Amino acid sequence: MSYRVKSYAAQSSSSPLAPFQFERRSPRADDVVIEILYCGVCHSDVHNVRNDWGNANYPMVPGHEIIGRVIATGAAVTRFKEGDHVGVGCLVASCQRCDACDHGHEQYCQNGATYTYNHNDPIDGTRTFGGYSEKIVVAEDFVLKVPNTLDLAGAAPLLCAGITTYSPLRHWKVGKSSKVAIVGLGGLGHMGLKLAKAMGAEVTLFSRSPGKEDDARRLGADHIVISTDVKQMAAVAGRFDLIINTVPCKHDVNPYIPTLASGGTMVMVGYLGPLDNFNTGPLVFRRKALAGSLIGGIAETQEMLDFCGRHGIHSDIERIAIQDINQAFERMLKADVKYRFVIDMNTLKESI
Amino acid sequence: MSYRVKSYAAQSSSSPLAPFQFERRSPRADDVVIEILYCGVCHSDVHNVRNDWGNANYPMVPGHEIIGRVIATGAAVTRFKEGDHVGVGCLVASCQRCDACDHGHEQYCQNGATYTYNHNDPIDGTRTFGGYSEKIVVAEDFVLKVPNTLDLAGAAPLLCAGITTYSPLRHWKVGKSSKVAIVGLGGLGHMGLKLAKAMGAEVTLFSRSPGKEDDARRLGADHIVISTDVKQMAAVAGRFDLIINTVPCKHDVNPYIPTLASGGTMVMVGYLGPLDNFNTGPLVFRRKALAGSLIGGIAETQEMLDFCGRHGIHSDIERIAIQDINQAFERMLKADVKYRFVIDMNTLKESI
Repeated sequence: MSYRVKSYAAQSSSSPLAPFQFERRSPRADDVVIEILYCGVCHSDVHNVRNDWGNANYPMVPGHEIIGRVIATGAAVTRFKEGDHVGVGCLVASCQRCDACDHGHEQYCQNGATYTYNHNDPIDGTRTFGGYSEKIVVAEDFVLKVPNTLDLAGAAPLLCAGITTYSPLRHWKVGKSSKVAIVGLGGLGHMGLKLAKAMGAEVTLFSRSPGKEDDARRLGADHIVISTDVKQMAAVAGRFDLIINTVPCKHDVNPYIPTLASGGTMVMVGYLGPLDNFNTGPLVFRRKALAGSLIGGIAETQEMLDFCGRHGIHSDIERIAIQDINQAFERMLKADVKYRFVIDMNTLKESI
Repeated sequence: MSYRVKSYAAQSSSSPLAPFQFERRSPRADDVVIEILYCGVCHSDVHNVRNDWGNANYPMVPGHEIIGRVIATGAAVTRFKEGDHVGVGCLVASCQRCDACDHGHEQYCQNGATYTYNHNDPIDGTRTFGGYSEKIVVAEDFVLKVPNTLDLAGAAPLLCAGITTYSPLRHWKVGKSSKVAIVGLGGLGHMGLKLAKAMGAEVTLFSRSPGKEDDARRLGADHIVISTDVKQMAAVAGRFDLIINTVPCKHDVNPYIPTLASGGTMVMVGYLGPLDNFNTGPLVFRRKALAGSLIGGIAETQEMLDFCGRHGIHSDIERIAIQDINQAFERMLKADVKYRFVIDMNTLKESI
């Protein structure tokens, strides 16, 4: 039996999200059928819906920060049963035989991972549709367990914003002696502050504008540096082992490089695109690096959820009804959200 | 007793190198007095002499690839004696108490290392003058032992070109299972091929133009990829764990990033300056990095010399007389040298 589900979808790059119905596949032997309870609204949802990256395929149901409840399982599923609270992030499949998959880096699958929406299922070729929807059907290897201690709505953004900052913090071995800076206080940035602090690091927020001090400190920042203030920037020269740059748009990254310690790395997790006049000189003179990082692997995402469960870490969210999604997109583009919209998918029952 | 020494120096950014005499300091207790036998000609010598980096201080005696013989030692010197063959590279002092120095990274000294020329001695404030000279006086902590198995002239370029490529190969843990690429076949590039091959890596040369295959293979390359050939570049997509980019001038580095494996790094060791439109997207999608690296620490430089001694690795050189240095600069700028000029400093006796 396949599932006819309600959802919200974009029909073109200029159309707002609107009610849409389609069929979810019948569960294959290794599939889990999930009733979606909450779905976070990621900045990349706007980019995808508006075809900013040139690869949009309509109709498109966005959403890859999914929290739900298992309502059915395929015959071969062993790790989940009806009633379990589960999460689904940005990935729903990968080849699981390449070197990257062997190392648990499904997000870097050499044969191409399958994204939760705007992609094609590798087995039957059908389109993938995301979490702004009643239900989703996902292979159990790509379903995450949600610790009992987590609030379900606040956990949704962990599936993308959380793992996107957790993965570089772990890869670059952040711990008690680390000095970490986060550039930008948005969906990703506020998770970066919380996670780095919970790992024991001394944490600094770089922000362009004053006024975020109280929030930043509450979220885990030990220090706030106004990045447009030359004196404040000079005062932290050579300070940071790792900078996670969450700014989602083109900006001058050169001023941050001198604040790295020798051997330090700035990791881009927000902006994908060309930089103007990025200067290699400061990299050479202190063996520094500019790197990138993309979400995380499945095992690492589970590790992150468990870490958040132990440390009581959620996203700071604003709950919305699905009917408010288009306004939420507009507000998100103005950075008018603290710090992540999460759709209460129960409100979808009122649609259509 | 101080030493009046003959040398070749530039008097301004537009003057050619010409005979020059000055005083070398009397040896302090920890100093070694070295009769210079050979000095390599580094691309940075031209940049410094011509004030390309805006920090030239004239008169300037270039040269930081120095091989010589100990002719006197201060009272506290314990590791060297008269007659020893020794080397001096790019550094002649550092604070030796900061975190970088404590870790053997004198090149990244947080209080500023002292360069072999165009700099100031941290003790008496006198100018430092380099190796295009009869003698040099250097604190023993910055003097290297030259293994007996090394040819002295061929060893000179190891002190800069050698360590500049050795250090990133070691830092990024190149070994038998590594796939390494070198961009550019010049002074640095030819050392990179030899060293990476001796470490057991599979080695590829990226070159803009055909015709270098025979030389590249002789120097250690297993493969040659013409970087302007889109098909050849596509054939090595995702291949390399480490790329060492030795090109000394501004160029488009974007085409090399897709040839890195997931988690791979391209290290800039030649070009210090702004890049046009460096794209962060390919870094993010496979957790890649663009890094820089500067020469190496003193212990690491000794390790490199010992490694070269064990593996019989020298620079491929063209010996010149000091009287030919200005033509050598011109030829070097046209990449007309295989692969490093080394000045036979014996020829200096005929000058002045």
